[in-house]
Amino acid sequence: MLQDYQLLRIPGPTPIPPSVQQVMLAPMIGHRDQETKALLNRIQPKLKNIFGTLQDIAVIAGSGTAGLESAVVNTVNPGEDVLVLVTGSFGDRFARICKTYQLTVHRFDYDWGTALEPEQIKAYLSQNPSIKAIFATYCETSTGVLNPIRELAQVVKQVSDALFIVDGVSCVGAVETRMDDWGIDVLVTGSQKALMLPPGLTFVAANKRAWKKIEESKQARFFLDLRKYRDSSQQDSTPFTPALSLLYGLEQSLTLIESEGFPAVFQRHQVMKNMTRASMRALGIPLLTNDLVASPTVTALKPYDFQPDLLRKIVKKDFGLVLAGGQNQLKGKIFRIGHMGYCSPADVIQVISCIEIGMYKLGKKTSLGIGTKAAQDVYLNHIEGD
Amino acid sequence: MLQDYQLLRIPGPTPIPPSVQQVMLAPMIGHRDQETKALLNRIQPKLKNIFGTLQDIAVIAGSGTAGLESAVVNTVNPGEDVLVLVTGSFGDRFARICKTYQLTVHRFDYDWGTALEPEQIKAYLSQNPSIKAIFATYCETSTGVLNPIRELAQVVKQVSDALFIVDGVSCVGAVETRMDDWGIDVLVTGSQKALMLPPGLTFVAANKRAWKKIEESKQARFFLDLRKYRDSSQQDSTPFTPALSLLYGLEQSLTLIESEGFPAVFQRHQVMKNMTRASMRALGIPLLTNDLVASPTVTALKPYDFQPDLLRKIVKKDFGLVLAGGQNQLKGKIFRIGHMGYCSPADVIQVISCIEIGMYKLGKKTSLGIGTKAAQDVYLNHIEGD
Repeated sequence: MLQDYQLLRIPGPTPIPPSVQQVMLAPMIGHRDQETKALLNRIQPKLKNIFGTLQDIAVIAGSGTAGLESAVVNTVNPGEDVLVLVTGSFGDRFARICKTYQLTVHRFDYDWGTALEPEQIKAYLSQNPSIKAIFATYCETSTGVLNPIRELAQVVKQVSDALFIVDGVSCVGAVETRMDDWGIDVLVTGSQKALMLPPGLTFVAANKRAWKKIEESKQARFFLDLRKYRDSSQQDSTPFTPALSLLYGLEQSLTLIESEGFPAVFQRHQVMKNMTRASMRALGIPLLTNDLVASPTVTALKPYDFQPDLLRKIVKKDFGLVLAGGQNQLKGKIFRIGHMGYCSPADVIQVISCIEIGMYKLGKKTSLGIGTKAAQDVYLNHIEGD
Repeated sequence: MLQDYQLLRIPGPTPIPPSVQQVMLAPMIGHRDQETKALLNRIQPKLKNIFGTLQDIAVIAGSGTAGLESAVVNTVNPGEDVLVLVTGSFGDRFARICKTYQLTVHRFDYDWGTALEPEQIKAYLSQNPSIKAIFATYCETSTGVLNPIRELAQVVKQVSDALFIVDGVSCVGAVETRMDDWGIDVLVTGSQKALMLPPGLTFVAANKRAWKKIEESKQARFFLDLRKYRDSSQQDSTPFTPALSLLYGLEQSLTLIESEGFPAVFQRHQVMKNMTRASMRALGIPLLTNDLVASPTVTALKPYDFQPDLLRKIVKKDFGLVLAGGQNQLKGKIFRIGHMGYCSPADVIQVISCIEIGMYKLGKKTSLGIGTKAAQDVYLNHIEGD
């Protein structure tokens, strides 16, 4: 097989654009010098656009989970009641973090592959005024569900003063996100998904309501103390040594997103989602999620007549195509295709054609070209509709 | 001035070797795939050599402060007595983290520029058996002191069962470190100093005594929970998405260190320290620290007849040479030269000659060549002694 060749199509880490790689080669600079301050200053407005907020964004050197944890330890006091909405393994992670910090966790579990239900949550909140914060996942990476965050924000505000805290790790930058307009109080994302960077940065924004709580919170925290990031940010700095090479890349990746334009970026992800779903339907591979809640960034498939991990093995061996498997209760039952960030409709067609060959090798001799054509049709319809 | 030119000689971040830059360009891979497992598996023994331990090393995506915080929140229960030895701003950071987590902090403050005193600490420990952990800084970056950690470890064990926890961020990899032999219970370092990488990784190792306490500890922690890193490490994995590009670089930088050989690496840093100190003496710029406790990685100077920040401004403007200033109580009073990691004796001579020109511009017309010659003498004496 061709050496040093790989097609990485998991829902993060995602491939890095060449120009982003290029700028990350820049030499180290003094992390307290004017150059770093200027860089942080240039990055802030771009990040605010991605989040849809006027608030400063904390840029933390850490995995996405560090961002999620900061959203917990800064906003809630030990013992307080919180509602955690679990639609998959990342909702479950929020719940586990909350448990770790001795919060009283009210937990809603939805079948993996379905979305949370705003009206039901509204009813619960109106009967449980003790809830101080609600934790939700925007795109649930483990299932490919895009939860109706905008709708949920709306109903939450109608019945509750609780903070509305959202994990946007695997979609912010690829789908419309209007933190301020929608009324998200705290929003978290990470570098290695739609933002087209290596892992190692996580981003957290909080609005005025959240800041009131953050100021008062008695939960101990140091590295993840958002107050430290805000105070430093006001001087275009960070409280701890920032991950400089990733910051260089971040400025470029945000510039790429701006150059393409937000509507075009969102549209591209929609088209890639529709291409993927149409092709899988044509190939007779059941989709885990229904169309209404399907994420533009990742699609989960639940085959009934072949083992997904066997398919993954074949396409990895033949083409270096890396697909994701299932997590936790979905382990061995699904496979997932990432189509976000540095990914074009042409890449989606390539993935589909490789999957067809894999299915052929698994004995499904009639699959060749079927899914590819369906995806091509979606692409052409979209272009004609332009 | 020559554009895009910089000489970064602060005590971290430090310059990145070209071959390390090169490997960091490798594309993203699946963070749960065999390639990542194999990478982590190859990195572990190299890291163990750097730490001088047989224990697995937790590789955390985060700033060095995240590593320091993990050393606190995993080993000590709220309310317990700890002794924090403060010889500068990073010792102070340990104390602030301990305060944040409601520990009862016994604090020893030493004059900034001096080292901690093992015998005095021994006496205190024997009179204060309630102390459960001792926090010390190996190289205090803010002053250029290399604290006598080996000696301290020895006396601590004679009188106390307390865990001995060491911040090795700005020297591990450049000076001899024998965690197991010396009896360091928890050791922390970071990527952006002697390990020649961009910031964004921190490393933590704990020995069996420490693990006993870590298992029992009731302090809440999630992202920084060392148990999660250990459990994942046993499967060549990480609990949260690792900073992949930095891991690629880490393997190469550790390979570079091994190729040079530990004795040669340590010797090179000693020579660079001696060159720097001899030149500054020749130039009449007082050293902040005395020879016995001077760090091989960073040297602090306290001029009495010119403003250090003025000198820094001149050499930055003329040569792109970035020196560090003072922190906290030493702000405006000292300047610091980093000579660690990807830094050779030739680089030290260059820095000295630039400083001489800066002094000339500040009115000290007789300085040219004086410090350079002193450094050259040290270098040649060292070679002849080989």
